[in-house]
Amino acid sequence: MATLVALYKKPADTAAFDSHYFAKHIPIAKKIPGLRGYEVSSGPVGTPAGESAFHLIALLRFDSLTAIQQALASPEGAATAADLVNFAQAGVDLLMFDTKEV
Amino acid sequence: MATLVALYKKPADTAAFDSHYFAKHIPIAKKIPGLRGYEVSSGPVGTPAGESAFHLIALLRFDSLTAIQQALASPEGAATAADLVNFAQAGVDLLMFDTKEV
Repeated sequence: MATLVALYKKPADTAAFDSHYFAKHIPIAKKIPGLRGYEVSSGPVGTPAGESAFHLIALLRFDSLTAIQQALASPEGAATAADLVNFAQAGVDLLMFDTKEV
Repeated sequence: MATLVALYKKPADTAAFDSHYFAKHIPIAKKIPGLRGYEVSSGPVGTPAGESAFHLIALLRFDSLTAIQQALASPEGAATAADLVNFAQAGVDLLMFDTKEV
């Protein structure tokens, strides 16, 4: 398996972010070819020391890193990326990697 | 479910990091009470633009954020944290949150 982690920094307007993310962004992202699972953080994203810099974290599952790269290059991936400007003005870090159970 | 994400920054000595992480750290961390699953990145951690700042990412699964907090406060959690100085000198960011499938 492989994972794409999206780390969304805290927005200026949390309610506007959440409204767009759940009503608009998720339905767009779920059309991405090869997507096998999609989890999001629920409630605060913390650290052992307290608050983190992030408002929401998404974990998207694919079969492989190659599948993630193909997904991002697809029209549906481009549409998902193009939607970020509508709610993720504070910034988002994307990390992608193959994973193995240990 | 809930997830603890450990993001390990690129070490000065990758081979020493990997050797310690897989031979020593994983067996210590697997003793943490309440741990339900443990995945690590395999190969490079990338971004859509290319290389990331991270060498390895671990995803640890628990039943809830409360379970993660209890795990970190346990003797086994303390032993896992105490081992970080032995290989993660470049730094590690820990993020923890409840998750839901969407």
